[in-house]
Amino acid sequence: MYTIDLNSDMGESFGAYTIGGDEEIIKYVTTANVACGWHAGDPMVMDKVVGMAKEHNVRVGAHPGYPDLLGFGRRKMVLSFLEVKNYIKYQIGALQAFTASYGMKLQHVAPHGALGNLCQYDREVSRAICEAVYEVDPGLMIYYCAGAVLGEEAQQMGLKAAAEIFADRAYMDDLSLVPRKMEGAMITDEVLVIERCVRMIKEGKVTSITGRELTIQGDTLCVHGDGPKAIAFVKRIREVFQYEGITIKNIE
Amino acid sequence: MYTIDLNSDMGESFGAYTIGGDEEIIKYVTTANVACGWHAGDPMVMDKVVGMAKEHNVRVGAHPGYPDLLGFGRRKMVLSFLEVKNYIKYQIGALQAFTASYGMKLQHVAPHGALGNLCQYDREVSRAICEAVYEVDPGLMIYYCAGAVLGEEAQQMGLKAAAEIFADRAYMDDLSLVPRKMEGAMITDEVLVIERCVRMIKEGKVTSITGRELTIQGDTLCVHGDGPKAIAFVKRIREVFQYEGITIKNIE
Amino acid sequence: MYTIDLNSDMGESFGAYTIGGDEEIIKYVTTANVACGWHAGDPMVMDKVVGMAKEHNVRVGAHPGYPDLLGFGRRKMVLSFLEVKNYIKYQIGALQAFTASYGMKLQHVAPHGALGNLCQYDREVSRAICEAVYEVDPGLMIYYCAGAVLGEEAQQMGLKAAAEIFADRAYMDDLSLVPRKMEGAMITDEVLVIERCVRMIKEGKVTSITGRELTIQGDTLCVHGDGPKAIAFVKRIREVFQYEGITIKNIE
Amino acid sequence: MYTIDLNSDMGESFGAYTIGGDEEIIKYVTTANVACGWHAGDPMVMDKVVGMAKEHNVRVGAHPGYPDLLGFGRRKMVLSFLEVKNYIKYQIGALQAFTASYGMKLQHVAPHGALGNLCQYDREVSRAICEAVYEVDPGLMIYYCAGAVLGEEAQQMGLKAAAEIFADRAYMDDLSLVPRKMEGAMITDEVLVIERCVRMIKEGKVTSITGRELTIQGDTLCVHGDGPKAIAFVKRIREVFQYEGITIKNIE
Repeated sequence: MYTIDLNSDMGESFGAYTIGGDEEIIKYVTTANVACGWHAGDPMVMDKVVGMAKEHNVRVGAHPGYPDLLGFGRRKMVLSFLEVKNYIKYQIGALQAFTASYGMKLQHVAPHGALGNLCQYDREVSRAICEAVYEVDPGLMIYYCAGAVLGEEAQQMGLKAAAEIFADRAYMDDLSLVPRKMEGAMITDEVLVIERCVRMIKEGKVTSITGRELTIQGDTLCVHGDGPKAIAFVKRIREVFQYEGITIKNIE
Repeated sequence: MYTIDLNSDMGESFGAYTIGGDEEIIKYVTTANVACGWHAGDPMVMDKVVGMAKEHNVRVGAHPGYPDLLGFGRRKMVLSFLEVKNYIKYQIGALQAFTASYGMKLQHVAPHGALGNLCQYDREVSRAICEAVYEVDPGLMIYYCAGAVLGEEAQQMGLKAAAEIFADRAYMDDLSLVPRKMEGAMITDEVLVIERCVRMIKEGKVTSITGRELTIQGDTLCVHGDGPKAIAFVKRIREVFQYEGITIKNIE
Repeated sequence: MYTIDLNSDMGESFGAYTIGGDEEIIKYVTTANVACGWHAGDPMVMDKVVGMAKEHNVRVGAHPGYPDLLGFGRRKMVLSFLEVKNYIKYQIGALQAFTASYGMKLQHVAPHGALGNLCQYDREVSRAICEAVYEVDPGLMIYYCAGAVLGEEAQQMGLKAAAEIFADRAYMDDLSLVPRKMEGAMITDEVLVIERCVRMIKEGKVTSITGRELTIQGDTLCVHGDGPKAIAFVKRIREVFQYEGITIKNIE
Repeated sequence: MYTIDLNSDMGESFGAYTIGGDEEIIKYVTTANVACGWHAGDPMVMDKVVGMAKEHNVRVGAHPGYPDLLGFGRRKMVLSFLEVKNYIKYQIGALQAFTASYGMKLQHVAPHGALGNLCQYDREVSRAICEAVYEVDPGLMIYYCAGAVLGEEAQQMGLKAAAEIFADRAYMDDLSLVPRKMEGAMITDEVLVIERCVRMIKEGKVTSITGRELTIQGDTLCVHGDGPKAIAFVKRIREVFQYEGITIKNIE
C-alpha cells in the first residue's frame, strides 16, 4: 500500500497583509510548514496557524527563510555558515514557543525559498541547517526536496529526513525545481498535476521539463494554499488518492 | 545574611553595531538578561552571549522588547493584549533555541525598555506578559521592577517572581524609574551608587529623586554593562558587598 | 457650482504582499496618496503607482507613516518632535525620487494611520509634520482631516492646506474619525455613503455617530481602494456627483 | 599640480547604535558619502550629518546599499535589474530631502558594500544604478572604484563620474579591493598607507597584494572614519599632501 504525508506552506501572512487561505487548506493536509517571521509570518500569524493545526490535528514544522521580508525569502543572500546556522536556530525556537503553548511538539524543519533551493547542491548550507536543527533538538526531522544534498547531510548527522515532492512544480533534469521565473515552472493543469502526483508516489517516476524520465521518491507531498483553486485542488487530490489506494497520513 | 542576584542587560549588539562590553561584564554577574532580536540583538549575538553565559556559569533570562530596533525599544507603542502576548512568546522561544543548544535552561523573562516601564502600572500589559510566559513554560521566572504590578500579576498566575532593583537609576516617589530624558535619571557617582545598593539590600530603603524615603525590596540587582567604567564599577560592587556581608548568588 | 478632489490611498502593497486594487482605482480618482515604504509600500510599488498616476494624469501625494510595517502604521508610537520631523522628510524625499523620475511634481503630504489621527489634536506632532514639509519644499500642500489642528498649523506656516473628508468612515462629535476598532467605524451601505458625501460637499453637514449634526468642509474626498466593491463604489460616486452637479477635479 | 577630493563614508550610525566619529572626520574631508537608512543610517542620523556637512562646507553624496541592516550591506543579494534601480532611487530621494532642507544640492551617488563591489564587473547592476541616478537627476555624479565597469556605464549614459581610490584597502591584480575577510585586506601601517596614497595620486601606480605594479587613476580618495586613529590619520594625510604639493579640493 502507498502512503504519503500531505504538507502545505502556511502562516505566510504578515500584519495587515494576507497570503494563502490557511483556514481552509489546514482542513485537508496532515502537516503544516509554518513561516517564522523572517521572510514571512509574524507572531500573531504563527499563534493562529499553530492553534488551527492543533484543532485539526495537523503536525507543525518550521519553515525558516532568509531575513528578507521584502523579497519573501526568494532572493539568494550570501551568508556565512554560522549566520545560516544561527538564523535557523532563532526561527525554530520562535515557532517552538507557539507549539509549546498549544502542548504540541514541533515535528520538522523545512527551509524556505532561495535558502531551500540552495540545499539542492550546497553542502555547507545544508550542514549549517542540519547542525542548527541537531543542536536545538536532535529529535526534529528535516524535510528536503527529493534529490537534495540536504537529505544526505541530515542522515549523516543522524537526523530523520523526509523527501518532499511537489504537486505543481516542474522538475529540471537533476530533480531541482524549475526556477519560478522560467516558463513552465508552475504546472497549472489540475488533471496533469494529479497524474504526476500519483505517478511519483506509485511508480517513483516523474517527467522533467526537458522530457526526461527521472526516478523520484517522496515521503511528503507539498501542495500550495494560495487562491480558491487550491482548496478544490487539495480536495480532488484526496478523492483521487483514495481511489488510487494512496493513504494520506503523517510520517511515522 | 544578605544575598542578592547580580544581573546585567546583555546581547544588545546588532550586526556590525556594538553596544556594551558583554565579554567583560559576564565575568562579574550571576545572571544575564539577553535581548532577543527585536529592539536589539540578533541570532549571532544571542549565540555568542549564551555561549559566554554557559562558560562563566551565568544564568540566562530573556529580555524581550518592542518591535522597534530604530528606537531601541525605548518608545512606547500602543499594542493589543494579544500582540504583547505573542510578541513575548516569539522572543522567549527564539532565545530558548540558543539555551537549548548549550544544554542550558532559560531562567526568567524581564521585559525591556518602554514595555518594561509600562509594567509599573499597566495590569493588562503585565498580564499579557505573564500569560505568554506561563503558556510557553510555567517554570520560567518573571523579573519585575520592585513595586511594579507585573510582580503581583506574576504571583497571581503562580509564576515565580523576582524584584529587580537598579544600581544606577534614580527612583520617583512611586518606585518607578526616573525617565531617562529627565535630569538626574542616571546616578553617576560611583560611591553614591554603591551606598544606595547596600542600603537597598540591607535596610530595604532608598531615597527618591524628591528626597523621600521609600521602602524597597530586591531579589536581583541590575548593573549596566556599557563603557569601560562599568567593569570597574561591578568589580567595586563585588568588593564592597563582600565587606558588607552581602553574598552575590543566583536566586534559589 | 461644487467641486471636489477625489483621492485614494495607494501603493500599500509590499514585496509579495498585495493590498488594494491600485490598477483599477487609479482610473477614477484625481489624486493618489502613496505610501512611502515605512508602514507600507516599497520602491517597486512606489515606482509602479507613480507610473500609473502619470499615465492616468493623477496627482501624487506622499502618505508617510510610522516605522511599523508589522502594524501597518495603525499603532500609536510615542516619538519626539525631531523624530517625527525627520521621518516625514525621509519618506517625502523617497517618493520624490519617483515623481522626479516621471517628470512629475509631488503635490502634497497626507499623514497616514495613527500618525494622521494624532494630528486631530496634537499640535506638536502637527507642527513637526508641517516643518518637515516646509523645509523640504514649501510649495507642497498638506492634506488634513477636516477639523484637525494640522490644518491650522499648516496655514500658520504658510503652507497650502486641503481639508479631507471621508466617504466611508463615521465621525465622532468632534469631527475625529471613529476608531477602526469601534463598531460603526466603517459605513458600508453604499447608498448611505454617497448621500453623506453629497451632503458634506453641498451642504457642509454630516451626522456624527451619536446623531449630532456637524459642520464640515472638504476640499478632497477620500475613497478606499480595497476590494472589488471599491471600484463599483467609485464609479457610482462619479455618476451621482455628475447628476448632483459636483465637479470632480484637482485642487487649484 | 596634483589635486584630489577627500571623501569618507558617514552617517552609518543607527538609532542607539554608533559607528564612526562623524563629528570629527567631517572637519577634514571635502566630501561625505552618507548612508541612506537601508544598510545603515536613519533619518535622525542623516539630518545630523547633512547639517554638519553644511556647517563645514563639505559636499554630500548618497551611499545607498542593500536592504540588509543586519549584514551592514556587506552580503551579496541577488536582485533583479528593476529592484536595484528602484532601491537606489528610493535611497537617493530620501537623502535629497535632507540636502534640500539645508539648501544644499546632492553631489553624487556611491554604491556601498557588496552592491558597490558588484560594480567592479557587473554591467547590469552598474547600468541599473546609472539609470536610477540619471532618471532622478542627470546632474548627479557617480563615484566608482577605479577600474570598475560602473565608471564606463556612467560615462556611456552621459553622467559625470569620479574614480575613487582607497587609502587603507589592498588591491587585487585586477584593481578590485581585496575582500574584507581575506588577510591583508586592510592596510594598517600608517606610513605605508600614506606612501601608497601619494604614489597613486602623483604616479598613478599602486602595488597589488600579489606584488604587481598596477596603473590606477583617482579623482577622490576614500578615508575611513572609524576609531580615534582615523582622525590622526586624516590629519597626517593633510600634512603630507601639503608637503607633497597635492591640493585637497572638491571635484570641479
